[in-house]
Amino acid sequence: MKIIDGRAISAQIKKEIAEEVARIKEAGGKTPHLAAILVGHDGGSETYVANKVKSCEEVGFNSTLIRYEDDVAEEELLDRVNQLNHDPDIDGFIVQLPLPKHISETKITEAIDYRKDVDGFHPVNVGRMSLGMPCFLSATPSGIMELLKRYEIETRGKHCVILGRSNIVGKPAAMLMMQKAYPGDCTVTVCHSRTPNIKEITLQADIIIAALGVPEFLTGDMVKEGVVVIDVGTTRVPSDKTKSGFKLTGDVKFDEVAPKCSYITPVPGGIGPMTIVSLLKNTLLAGKKEIYQ
Amino acid sequence: MKIIDGRAISAQIKKEIAEEVARIKEAGGKTPHLAAILVGHDGGSETYVANKVKSCEEVGFNSTLIRYEDDVAEEELLDRVNQLNHDPDIDGFIVQLPLPKHISETKITEAIDYRKDVDGFHPVNVGRMSLGMPCFLSATPSGIMELLKRYEIETRGKHCVILGRSNIVGKPAAMLMMQKAYPGDCTVTVCHSRTPNIKEITLQADIIIAALGVPEFLTGDMVKEGVVVIDVGTTRVPSDKTKSGFKLTGDVKFDEVAPKCSYITPVPGGIGPMTIVSLLKNTLLAGKKEIYQ
Repeated sequence: MKIIDGRAISAQIKKEIAEEVARIKEAGGKTPHLAAILVGHDGGSETYVANKVKSCEEVGFNSTLIRYEDDVAEEELLDRVNQLNHDPDIDGFIVQLPLPKHISETKITEAIDYRKDVDGFHPVNVGRMSLGMPCFLSATPSGIMELLKRYEIETRGKHCVILGRSNIVGKPAAMLMMQKAYPGDCTVTVCHSRTPNIKEITLQADIIIAALGVPEFLTGDMVKEGVVVIDVGTTRVPSDKTKSGFKLTGDVKFDEVAPKCSYITPVPGGIGPMTIVSLLKNTLLAGKKEIYQ
Repeated sequence: MKIIDGRAISAQIKKEIAEEVARIKEAGGKTPHLAAILVGHDGGSETYVANKVKSCEEVGFNSTLIRYEDDVAEEELLDRVNQLNHDPDIDGFIVQLPLPKHISETKITEAIDYRKDVDGFHPVNVGRMSLGMPCFLSATPSGIMELLKRYEIETRGKHCVILGRSNIVGKPAAMLMMQKAYPGDCTVTVCHSRTPNIKEITLQADIIIAALGVPEFLTGDMVKEGVVVIDVGTTRVPSDKTKSGFKLTGDVKFDEVAPKCSYITPVPGGIGPMTIVSLLKNTLLAGKKEIYQ
């Protein structure tokens, strides 16, 4: 059994990006520039955005943080999005979700120029991903693909079972794992809350991507020997063993499942650290205009 | 065993559309107008486009057929697409595929304004479909959904196995069958040429959508009692029993599979007649500006 080290891979890719950025700058090219819009003061969002900005600095990008209070009007936010769409110095930008209830996340997401949509949430990027065209891949599916690739895990002809059908993990992971490519070329099954016989299906899986958001859902009796398990779950479960009073818990009962696995991602330290890397990769691609002109 | 009658449902929906168009006209509304671009003289394409134009007339739409010779320049075609994009009288239009080799189908498809893309091939419509947003659904997946709905076939919690991962059938059918909706809410498995154990998987299926393009691939021993089978295959197989010298053959060995089914679509007369209906439905939606303004 091998533990997939998301932290190490993430650090490695950041290093690769930093080297490429240094080369670009040396050659007189444009420094990639990411902008992030943060609305309000949600603790989680604050942390995520701060990490994104910090990572940009680490790899040598320029970054701009734009803050609004909770009561910002949708119209004002849309104006700002439009301004960023037309700012030639901004290569890509994100609007940190969730947004306050009076603002339509769909409207904001669709207002972002898909050529600067480094979160990969715009319908154009989702559609191109599904069609197998070059696009900005969203963070979690991109992180999953990267880990499979870096660990050279065989996927061709394997049965990949995905638990969860969310727009940001389950569905895109399914599309990617079935595509005629590596990683990919899997038989793919997507299970969810309406699946009556999940255990029967996970027992057939060569690769399991668990993204239900149900702590320790996947237990030892649900997997076969040699399975590859990618745990995307990150639920805060109360704990008296940590200073913060909670423990980040995956969808996989690690102690039971890990001994049966050929590869498994831990939580934390598996998929989590990879999501930031996807954003950096997309911003670099945007800066180089490699996907869109 | 019940045979799903695509011809009858198709005729019924055409009648419903014709009635709605008559009401729109009576109320002084705009008559929906579909344009079709046909390049060259491929026999299949000629027939398809002629059928589309004829169906438009049947339901009371306006239609315009635009023809180009095989040697038309890509630039000229793009100009025409752009002109149609800006023509306020044209509600939707299609460019019949395949196109001659010197023309990029991707470029043409992406040049079509997604708000007039009644074929549902533009990345925006594919992405919105995947995200569960209102969109123009492409013909075959839309036809499948419509037949399941009209026959009130239960899909919730069922295991739907899809054979084939094409961009125009397998992938979109998978996205639709897994969505939280009716039809949908299925556990979905997508099998394809790289799946080593297809029979093992089809034997678990409550619903099978066969879209491999391999004549009579699905045999009686591959399905369980009571299965619902949707046959999307249409391969021309040589035959000495028909005047044309060929027989339209599905992916399902009908004689063997049908007796085990609760429902099955025949070929021809199943999914085939439904595809034209999807185009008409999309054009009506476009005319009414129900999805996009």
